[in-house]
Amino acid sequence: MDFELTEEQRAFADTAREFAAIELAPHAAQWDRDSIFPREAIAKAGELGFCGLYAPERIGGLGLPRLDAALVFEEMAAVDPSTTAFITIHNMATWMLGNWGSDAVCAKWGEALTSGRKLASYCLTEPGAGSDAGALKTRAVLEGSEYVINGGKAFISGAGATDVLVLMARTGGAGPGGVSAFAVPADAPGIGYGKKEHKMGWNSQPTRTISFDNVRVPVDHLLGQEGEGFRIAMKGLDGGRINIATCSVGAAQGALDAARRYLHERQQFGKPLASFQALQFKLADMATELVAARQMVRLAASKLDAQHPDASTYCAMAKRFATDAGFNVVNEALQLHGGYGYLGEFPLERLLRDARVHQILEGTNEIMRVIVSRKLLEGDADIR
Amino acid sequence: MDFELTEEQRAFADTAREFAAIELAPHAAQWDRDSIFPREAIAKAGELGFCGLYAPERIGGLGLPRLDAALVFEEMAAVDPSTTAFITIHNMATWMLGNWGSDAVCAKWGEALTSGRKLASYCLTEPGAGSDAGALKTRAVLEGSEYVINGGKAFISGAGATDVLVLMARTGGAGPGGVSAFAVPADAPGIGYGKKEHKMGWNSQPTRTISFDNVRVPVDHLLGQEGEGFRIAMKGLDGGRINIATCSVGAAQGALDAARRYLHERQQFGKPLASFQALQFKLADMATELVAARQMVRLAASKLDAQHPDASTYCAMAKRFATDAGFNVVNEALQLHGGYGYLGEFPLERLLRDARVHQILEGTNEIMRVIVSRKLLEGDADIR
Amino acid sequence: MDFELTEEQRAFADTAREFAAIELAPHAAQWDRDSIFPREAIAKAGELGFCGLYAPERIGGLGLPRLDAALVFEEMAAVDPSTTAFITIHNMATWMLGNWGSDAVCAKWGEALTSGRKLASYCLTEPGAGSDAGALKTRAVLEGSEYVINGGKAFISGAGATDVLVLMARTGGAGPGGVSAFAVPADAPGIGYGKKEHKMGWNSQPTRTISFDNVRVPVDHLLGQEGEGFRIAMKGLDGGRINIATCSVGAAQGALDAARRYLHERQQFGKPLASFQALQFKLADMATELVAARQMVRLAASKLDAQHPDASTYCAMAKRFATDAGFNVVNEALQLHGGYGYLGEFPLERLLRDARVHQILEGTNEIMRVIVSRKLLEGDADIR
Amino acid sequence: MDFELTEEQRAFADTAREFAAIELAPHAAQWDRDSIFPREAIAKAGELGFCGLYAPERIGGLGLPRLDAALVFEEMAAVDPSTTAFITIHNMATWMLGNWGSDAVCAKWGEALTSGRKLASYCLTEPGAGSDAGALKTRAVLEGSEYVINGGKAFISGAGATDVLVLMARTGGAGPGGVSAFAVPADAPGIGYGKKEHKMGWNSQPTRTISFDNVRVPVDHLLGQEGEGFRIAMKGLDGGRINIATCSVGAAQGALDAARRYLHERQQFGKPLASFQALQFKLADMATELVAARQMVRLAASKLDAQHPDASTYCAMAKRFATDAGFNVVNEALQLHGGYGYLGEFPLERLLRDARVHQILEGTNEIMRVIVSRKLLEGDADIR
Repeated sequence: MDFELTEEQRAFADTAREFAAIELAPHAAQWDRDSIFPREAIAKAGELGFCGLYAPERIGGLGLPRLDAALVFEEMAAVDPSTTAFITIHNMATWMLGNWGSDAVCAKWGEALTSGRKLASYCLTEPGAGSDAGALKTRAVLEGSEYVINGGKAFISGAGATDVLVLMARTGGAGPGGVSAFAVPADAPGIGYGKKEHKMGWNSQPTRTISFDNVRVPVDHLLGQEGEGFRIAMKGLDGGRINIATCSVGAAQGALDAARRYLHERQQFGKPLASFQALQFKLADMATELVAARQMVRLAASKLDAQHPDASTYCAMAKRFATDAGFNVVNEALQLHGGYGYLGEFPLERLLRDARVHQILEGTNEIMRVIVSRKLLEGDADIR
Repeated sequence: MDFELTEEQRAFADTAREFAAIELAPHAAQWDRDSIFPREAIAKAGELGFCGLYAPERIGGLGLPRLDAALVFEEMAAVDPSTTAFITIHNMATWMLGNWGSDAVCAKWGEALTSGRKLASYCLTEPGAGSDAGALKTRAVLEGSEYVINGGKAFISGAGATDVLVLMARTGGAGPGGVSAFAVPADAPGIGYGKKEHKMGWNSQPTRTISFDNVRVPVDHLLGQEGEGFRIAMKGLDGGRINIATCSVGAAQGALDAARRYLHERQQFGKPLASFQALQFKLADMATELVAARQMVRLAASKLDAQHPDASTYCAMAKRFATDAGFNVVNEALQLHGGYGYLGEFPLERLLRDARVHQILEGTNEIMRVIVSRKLLEGDADIR
Repeated sequence: MDFELTEEQRAFADTAREFAAIELAPHAAQWDRDSIFPREAIAKAGELGFCGLYAPERIGGLGLPRLDAALVFEEMAAVDPSTTAFITIHNMATWMLGNWGSDAVCAKWGEALTSGRKLASYCLTEPGAGSDAGALKTRAVLEGSEYVINGGKAFISGAGATDVLVLMARTGGAGPGGVSAFAVPADAPGIGYGKKEHKMGWNSQPTRTISFDNVRVPVDHLLGQEGEGFRIAMKGLDGGRINIATCSVGAAQGALDAARRYLHERQQFGKPLASFQALQFKLADMATELVAARQMVRLAASKLDAQHPDASTYCAMAKRFATDAGFNVVNEALQLHGGYGYLGEFPLERLLRDARVHQILEGTNEIMRVIVSRKLLEGDADIR
Repeated sequence: MDFELTEEQRAFADTAREFAAIELAPHAAQWDRDSIFPREAIAKAGELGFCGLYAPERIGGLGLPRLDAALVFEEMAAVDPSTTAFITIHNMATWMLGNWGSDAVCAKWGEALTSGRKLASYCLTEPGAGSDAGALKTRAVLEGSEYVINGGKAFISGAGATDVLVLMARTGGAGPGGVSAFAVPADAPGIGYGKKEHKMGWNSQPTRTISFDNVRVPVDHLLGQEGEGFRIAMKGLDGGRINIATCSVGAAQGALDAARRYLHERQQFGKPLASFQALQFKLADMATELVAARQMVRLAASKLDAQHPDASTYCAMAKRFATDAGFNVVNEALQLHGGYGYLGEFPLERLLRDARVHQILEGTNEIMRVIVSRKLLEGDADIR
């Protein structure tokens, strides 16, 4: 058992921190306020390899373990969880494409995606379906050498601003076994994009519904085999949960650092806030909860990297714990800033609005509890 | 001991609920999104007496107990906490003016304020001073028949859109005893308004800093006596805390009602959300916490109405408890809505952003703990 | 709406406080340690009317509202929750007997019970049945002028030390409608008592299983009508929940008072604990939670006294909230005492052990959530 | 970074689990109930090396890392936290003696202690001094070739039943620098033992005050150098905190396992408890919190083993987090057992009573927050 990062891992994290300080930090507030999708900044992240961190080398990815990717994501999320979260989704979709895509698909999009020149959206959720992924209704019907896709997706990150859609659609009967995955050009005829959603946060990435009206894709745009889509989605979700949990850990670290600075700078009743014991205790609890959250994420990433049979359970635990902890820590940091925490000139209220959705996305934290309890109550699971 | 509302009280609440449904509910989301200060809607509230609920009859107020005012505020806050919170601040400032203003001041502004034709801002907080009200630095110096005011205020609700400023300024030496209260025309020469602050919520009311540069007001614009300002402010704060706590109770009730409806409407895994036990339990806890919060507010309002010697302690307890509970309930309601809770088309994310500041305003909840613990640990207090 | 106690109510509370200080406080620790059932102290409580506080005057009870009874119970529970809880159960059983008992039954036991010369146990729960009261299996079969009772009960407070058993048994078919209530002499032939249970707390009252082997009682020992038992039990439970919630409020008040004293007395790092801000804040939160719990109990008692249609919902809310709050407050008070809180020479650890069962008894707090959520989700309930 | 146990580590854990199942589980309830100190069982633990797990090999210890010791302690604590906690204290005292003891001292007691044939108590805390270790008043004055010790200690685990006392006493001036450590025969003339304390739990180990009245020990019974005592104590505390945190993790695991079994076995309303979603969610949260606690402990143990400069901070975080989590998990498990959780025939109420003191011992969890916040607010600490 070893809890220390390697030198290489530290180097990844340092690079990411520096990138975040230079390319994200000065603009994050404005991107949020004006709902700007920072394509250029994401492309610069791509130049560092951050758009294909764990995508296979076959398509130009770095092929890193999830644990290493998490180190990078965490540093960026400390500054801008919204943009970082989009990058993680792009990483996931790119990894799917690289892992299960045909040579044609990989040749067409692989390097463009891993380098960040093109971007991908992940299209699983449907209107009204929420966490019940197995019930999806979007259909893809094979007609000759093409699949014809009809249906609709909701809550799609990046929709309208990305180039490729990794899409889950039903090719077979009801239930998980009838679902297949596809790579779809985002500008294919028949694709319609809804209006940009007004959201509490995550404003630097557009969220839209997408409609599919007789959208045709060549048969080689199928990812993996027919009927394999749900399994691909589930494998993606494990990693997606680690990613989103990491974004919460990052947000919490950013908030904690801000709070530490503020407690030193700000005076009340003639003394710096840092001298008030109740605030000291609050800070101690925030740091402790954050360290625990980070450990949970790293443990889960390590289990996923090792293809541990209980990896999904650990990922669900980590997602539940870290996104709750992340929100709490950010929320406490906001409180420590008093009225200034509520203003846009400090990052706290943005971090809070961004981190809030992590408790909902990639399966709500309620669904995480379903997953964990099922494991605990079925069979002879011994989650230690 | 009697926990039932009178018929008259129910009538107040019903009127307020109806007003909120017609005049606030259809517009609240837009006012928030576009940062619109709804002067006309507030004037309509004024026609119903809601702008001078507990202001003295001398200036056209209804002279109601705080408890009754809370019933009205709660109903409006269930729909729009931001606009309602401004109305409560206006009520407080108007009450101060009516209670301690000279005949001249009352004649000039009284009826205009209680009727909502003119609006008042309350100017206590200074940049960097936060909860330490006794340390304020804005000075008012008597020169002949005028006070000359210099200094600055921060976090002023309504600033730039209101007509009268109820201002705390130092006329004497250091400490609370040197503070006096004034009514100041909002457009007096020498008054400057800062840019509209970007905030997490409370967007239907502008918040600005105000600077005072040799602003001159007649001597009869003093409220009460010289040196009485801190006492007036403190009396105002007790009521202000009940008001803000009430806005949290209202927001929580609005969120709970939305969650109850949603649990019936929304299906997951083939069943309405209402049939999932874990969500049922969540709803039960939300309702319980809300009922407790409401009771705390009513208890405190009743103590304040009765001028109970421990009224300030009860107000601090109620403010701490109800604003925390309010935020929690809204936050849980948002979670129950899943991804839809994060979108602007549902009220949850707005209620959450609005309710968040209640834990900070009118003395942070940390200051509330200072007040309560001081009472508990000094003398022979027996808070039951 | 009026939150003040009347003079008469204050007098009840004062009497109870004095009684508790003289008759309970000096012995409570020893009764706990040595598992002594303090019959004499209970009899003295009876002399003050505390054994028939809300029992009908017909049998010598005081016929007080639940609210008034709660005032008395709270004062005693601040010193000894275990003994007080038994007295509340005795009150409930006595009230049932007085309300639904035949003249014969009332004549036989009424005055003895209200005066505390004889004591009653309440026999509802069965082994393995827990909160599912409608499923009870103990049977009572009418044979001539007698009912013949067979079956078993579990978790019976006072069992083996009381004189009358108020028993729920099945006289009809399955479900709630088949249940009837009886008064049974505790020493009737065929009644067997299990060994005294080892418990975490509540040691001043024995808990035992009871077996019924062809126990015969005259037909006039039926309480109310055949089939009315479940309704009687449910009515009793509403009051029982207020009682047990009150015992938690009392325990919390006792613990809070101890903590306040201790913070003044105890020095650490050269200063009294009372001067440490983090502990001050803790105390403030404890007091606030306690005041909220007390209000919830009084609100529920008032609803029950007024036979409000939602009284059961309010009682369930109060039981859930106050027993959780009570445990938390006691637990925090223990922590504030450091190592001394863990020792038997201070009352904290006893209060904690006693208060813990309140979250389980009279329907677990999980069952309370079932009750509250059912109300919220069915029909047009508007719990405010 | 690697989160997997080695085969050797698994073997340690398996051995400990087996030992606990055979030697502790059948007796733990009785030892608790009758306050029996299980010297024989401890001696058997000693035969397996569990009495000198990280004591140096010089005195027959296994010289294992803290991480490995934690694996052993956790398994035993899952069955009997009280006895296990004593064994951890014995390990700590033995490690001190082995590390800083003179050859004479090591020869006299070393092998007897590591083998469990003799037992050691750790004597730091004084009456009224609690967490303020630097203020201790017990004095040791050098007279010729002997130190003469006068003073008193409180809350000493094992006192009256152990053979050696590792004692902190003041040999110099005020403050931490004046403290020295000694090995003292437990039966030396002048040592007096107070009555056995009545405690909430930890009943299988006696706790007593100890008085020192001109107790004489040879000069070679000094551990380390004069004035080094506080530093030794602090080094011991880091490990002691990991130990006690481990005991909480163990207790929580024992409680969680019991809850999982019970949810399957127990029926309510015609269905196993395991089928109720609210209880499933509870179980999932318990398991998640437990896994996080375990990770925190292992992280801290690893930092301590590596002599990381922030090891003390991590130990304080782990102690705070794991002892709070442990209590919460045990408390929830008790609740899931309903009334049976409150009875002595199930282990829950004992586990709760035992685990409660872990939040207080080895520095209260409030002191842990002092330690963590000091680190966060001073210098450039970067606790990640």
